Amino acid sequence: MKQSFTIAKLAEIVGGTLRGDGSAVIDGVAEVSAAQPNQATWVTRGQYAKKLPASRAGVVLVAPDFGATPMAAILCERLDRAVALLLGAFARPPDHPALGVHPTAVIDPTARIGPNAAIGPHVVIGPGVRVGASCVLCAGVFLGREATIGDDCVLWPNVVVRDGCTLGNRVIVHPNAVIGADGFGYYRDAGHYQKVPHTGGVVLEDDVEIGACACIDRAKFADTVIGRGTKIDNLVQIGHNARVGTDCVLAGQSGVSGSVRIGHGCVIGGQVGIIDNLVIGDGASFGACAVVTRDVEAGQAVAGWPIQEISRALRTQALMIRLPELAAELKELAARVERLEASADHRS
Amino acid sequence: MKQSFTIAKLAEIVGGTLRGDGSAVIDGVAEVSAAQPNQATWVTRGQYAKKLPASRAGVVLVAPDFGATPMAAILCERLDRAVALLLGAFARPPDHPALGVHPTAVIDPTARIGPNAAIGPHVVIGPGVRVGASCVLCAGVFLGREATIGDDCVLWPNVVVRDGCTLGNRVIVHPNAVIGADGFGYYRDAGHYQKVPHTGGVVLEDDVEIGACACIDRAKFADTVIGRGTKIDNLVQIGHNARVGTDCVLAGQSGVSGSVRIGHGCVIGGQVGIIDNLVIGDGASFGACAVVTRDVEAGQAVAGWPIQEISRALRTQALMIRLPELAAELKELAARVERLEASADHRS
Amino acid sequence: MKQSFTIAKLAEIVGGTLRGDGSAVIDGVAEVSAAQPNQATWVTRGQYAKKLPASRAGVVLVAPDFGATPMAAILCERLDRAVALLLGAFARPPDHPALGVHPTAVIDPTARIGPNAAIGPHVVIGPGVRVGASCVLCAGVFLGREATIGDDCVLWPNVVVRDGCTLGNRVIVHPNAVIGADGFGYYRDAGHYQKVPHTGGVVLEDDVEIGACACIDRAKFADTVIGRGTKIDNLVQIGHNARVGTDCVLAGQSGVSGSVRIGHGCVIGGQVGIIDNLVIGDGASFGACAVVTRDVEAGQAVAGWPIQEISRALRTQALMIRLPELAAELKELAARVERLEASADHRS
Repeated sequence: MKQSFTIAKLAEIVGGTLRGDGSAVIDGVAEVSAAQPNQATWVTRGQYAKKLPASRAGVVLVAPDFGATPMAAILCERLDRAVALLLGAFARPPDHPALGVHPTAVIDPTARIGPNAAIGPHVVIGPGVRVGASCVLCAGVFLGREATIGDDCVLWPNVVVRDGCTLGNRVIVHPNAVIGADGFGYYRDAGHYQKVPHTGGVVLEDDVEIGACACIDRAKFADTVIGRGTKIDNLVQIGHNARVGTDCVLAGQSGVSGSVRIGHGCVIGGQVGIIDNLVIGDGASFGACAVVTRDVEAGQAVAGWPIQEISRALRTQALMIRLPELAAELKELAARVERLEASADHRS
Repeated sequence: MKQSFTIAKLAEIVGGTLRGDGSAVIDGVAEVSAAQPNQATWVTRGQYAKKLPASRAGVVLVAPDFGATPMAAILCERLDRAVALLLGAFARPPDHPALGVHPTAVIDPTARIGPNAAIGPHVVIGPGVRVGASCVLCAGVFLGREATIGDDCVLWPNVVVRDGCTLGNRVIVHPNAVIGADGFGYYRDAGHYQKVPHTGGVVLEDDVEIGACACIDRAKFADTVIGRGTKIDNLVQIGHNARVGTDCVLAGQSGVSGSVRIGHGCVIGGQVGIIDNLVIGDGASFGACAVVTRDVEAGQAVAGWPIQEISRALRTQALMIRLPELAAELKELAARVERLEASADHRS
Repeated sequence: MKQSFTIAKLAEIVGGTLRGDGSAVIDGVAEVSAAQPNQATWVTRGQYAKKLPASRAGVVLVAPDFGATPMAAILCERLDRAVALLLGAFARPPDHPALGVHPTAVIDPTARIGPNAAIGPHVVIGPGVRVGASCVLCAGVFLGREATIGDDCVLWPNVVVRDGCTLGNRVIVHPNAVIGADGFGYYRDAGHYQKVPHTGGVVLEDDVEIGACACIDRAKFADTVIGRGTKIDNLVQIGHNARVGTDCVLAGQSGVSGSVRIGHGCVIGGQVGIIDNLVIGDGASFGACAVVTRDVEAGQAVAGWPIQEISRALRTQALMIRLPELAAELKELAARVERLEASADHRS
């Protein structure tokens, strides 16, 4: 069944101020050009704002200084937050398994499961595992021996958490992600690679979120650590013994090599690569696809390959695509210098 | 049991014209240097064509203008198509589960499954799911609440399709791919990232193919859409609300960020990265590893970082590796100018 | 229960020479700054060596020529090997399922399983599969029709090995990896992509290791081959018909396109991309993120985009970030030449 709210009620839900008639009923959200009179929309950027006059939306969320709108408006100090609350208002309950333990789940008798757990079909829970209160383990989740899961975690289908790994509270792991596979470490012996045992684990602190098919490798010893509140996107690789601080974001397909230390509040773009053992200061940020081969100090915003401060990286890249012209100018200049030299020789 | 055909029959199967004796029996396919008299091969490119005189193959597929061959030949107007038909002729039946529902599958009583389904062990199908006719769901597949699957789809083992996602007809999804995980969207509140609900879904239109461990994220609202006939390779990431047109190919490990719009008939090379909100015109193509940070018009073929038209990108790259020489020339030229200036000063 | 050893016993285990008192008992391993008197540590590099005087570790493993240490030392000719043995000494038994076949596993009656197998919950084994002696198949592993697994293999949870693929002895495959998905091959017909059947398989030779969520595609015909002892990291993509030699390492998120041939003993850094059909000689190595668009000869060490010999690649990259200065120098030089020309004109 679809949720619906009056515009006035929506203003309350999103924490904004109603401008215009709040009596109409809204039952969904759509983009500015697609929205119908029974739907809400929002506009922030120029491109979308231009489409607002032609929009049929029943109500629009805008920043307080946005100006006139052809339909009712909800003025929001924090528009990003308001939009999240708007979407949340119309969200269906999450698709979790039923409370209790599905009869096809295989749970070791020594595992301890907290109250209000929802454990789906074909889940496997190993010996000595502890699962906190109100956790959701969707179909096919695997928890290895003595893994520890805090309260209110959600593990989507087919997530693998190997033995001895620890998840804090409110951790979310998306489908097919792998927590605690062996790190990639070998030594050479007579030309062959021999495996280095990885005896450590992984710690995902409170409020961490891990994307689909992302891989967080276990440590050689001690732990690979993802700090509180850090969000990791799909297909990201975190190597053994890496330590990522709190409140970071790592976008899709980025890779953090072994033993890298990343500070707090860092922003790492899609497909960024960070080679092993580097140290990244708090608040550093990395443009998409940056190739990071040196330490980065706190607060620096870098991009490119090699990385440079971002505005300089943009200048460098603008010159890179002018290399054919620069090379031609150099050649032409050399010819002019040669003529000057010939003329000077002639004169002397 | 191995398939076998006379050469004459093979010519018919692949739609080509027999040249030489068609009576010998062929029971397999091999590369030109490895093929035996009971095997077929084909040659297209110079490198392989040179090996043909020494080949023991029983028959070779070639283009009509190929010239003499030391064995029977099948002349094919459409050699790529003929080779696909040749391989298909010797392919074993696909490794699908038996028709019917495996007793270990867990299917919600409100799900509706079409006729001739083959549903393997440990499949999980949620409430309200609709599966069309003649679908194959291999072991461990998960279909979330109210997912909709068309006719003749094949989902390989451990594929996850989350709630509310829609697959058209003849869609193929390879093992461990994830359709409909939450998009990577947050807002900041007091320094912490708060999750933006992703209330939309994913639509994979007819004849789409999704590679192993690829991830297609669900939309914030409305749908992330992959157009009819588009083929997506392994480990590709498609962000929330992206829209990919029809008849595109996206090669392995490429990444498409949130809200990108890709036209029809585009070709995206391996490890290409496209940042968020860009618009890519119909028929655009991207060389492997291109880093795409601006819109691309229809029909453009680009490559590199930053992207440039492909022939210019190659010139730029050729100059990039000559930078040490260019820098040395510049330095040498500066010295010569200095001497000219000194000499001019002296003269004046 | 925790393992513990006297220092003297540890020296024996790691094959080193004791210096100092060997009677104290050690029950774990930690980093030099974190280690306690009941723990062992090791130091190799300058950075860590500096922290040794302040360390509370009970014993340190060092190279024979390391010099004085404030605690007992074990002198090791092969420190990397000794550290691996040290970690192994304290490693817990691996988290494998119990010997025998879990009752929830679904095994085709025509499959043959060797002695001492440990087959976990919800494993699925298809018709005609052969599994060697002492194999470990963790929860949710899928083995397709007529797959062949050698002796002493370990397949972690949710690994998919599709039909007809072959694993040698002592092969390790990490969670959610996919062996033998269809290669990415199509031909165009009237503007649409048509699938090329992939009738070949994958061969992983003895002692190969495949990372979590890595994908090794099956061949069009014959086999995609990973040579003996080669180690492949998480999220790596190996395309159809690629052949990787023996004793190679491929780091995380690297990609090898279809039909590439890689020699023996190659080292491929993280996120490296190799385009299709290239030939890489024995012992070649590739720096992280290298974009490989041409063949590479045996023994070459390359990096960058385009790739160059590594020391030259570093020089080129150093110049790339100086492009703003080089362009400014060029402009300034042009102005000086112009003045010289004007002055010469004036004089003549």
